[in-house]
Amino acid sequence: MKVKTMITATVLGVAMSGAVWAGGNAAAGADKAKTVCAACHGPDGNSIAPDFPKLAGQNEDYLQHTLKAYKEKTRTNAIMNGQAAGLSDQDIDNLSAFYANQKGLQVKH
Amino acid sequence: MKVKTMITATVLGVAMSGAVWAGGNAAAGADKAKTVCAACHGPDGNSIAPDFPKLAGQNEDYLQHTLKAYKEKTRTNAIMNGQAAGLSDQDIDNLSAFYANQKGLQVKH
Repeated sequence: MKVKTMITATVLGVAMSGAVWAGGNAAAGADKAKTVCAACHGPDGNSIAPDFPKLAGQNEDYLQHTLKAYKEKTRTNAIMNGQAAGLSDQDIDNLSAFYANQKGLQVKH
Repeated sequence: MKVKTMITATVLGVAMSGAVWAGGNAAAGADKAKTVCAACHGPDGNSIAPDFPKLAGQNEDYLQHTLKAYKEKTRTNAIMNGQAAGLSDQDIDNLSAFYANQKGLQVKH
């Protein structure tokens, strides 16, 4: 019985951590994006500068993975390592949900 | 006179290398994309897998920069370093022109 409870708790824990990871709040992400990301990536992720990536409509999983990699410095970029250092895991989920739900525009440079 | 010629040639050379760098052929890029990139990034750069980035509609400059970085291994990724190793500078320009001109779609996973 004890073992079964432990297994159940473990399975539930893994399932819940998965849910948290996938559960970004796009509205909270929009607020954060305005203050942290918009200067380079545009107000809705349609980056104005041609050498910065467009984030609007990007896959949510990929955005999470990338921001996490910048935060943990497994992906290195002078600007983004600094920016991501100040983001919590929840910020990363929220920002990813926000950008994934924006419409990618054909920006002509 | 000689110095002037040299300066002119240098300026022209720099201007031309800039033109070549920006001058991708989207049609040639489409052919290359079909054989090299489509399996992961989708036929038009709207990646099917949620953990691979969408390339459709991404900024051309950013795509060139990224593919060059993968080729030169200044950006490391086990899959992409291998893929980019086989690309010429012209391939990179062509692929970047192709993907930048595709329409980014809201893909629901």
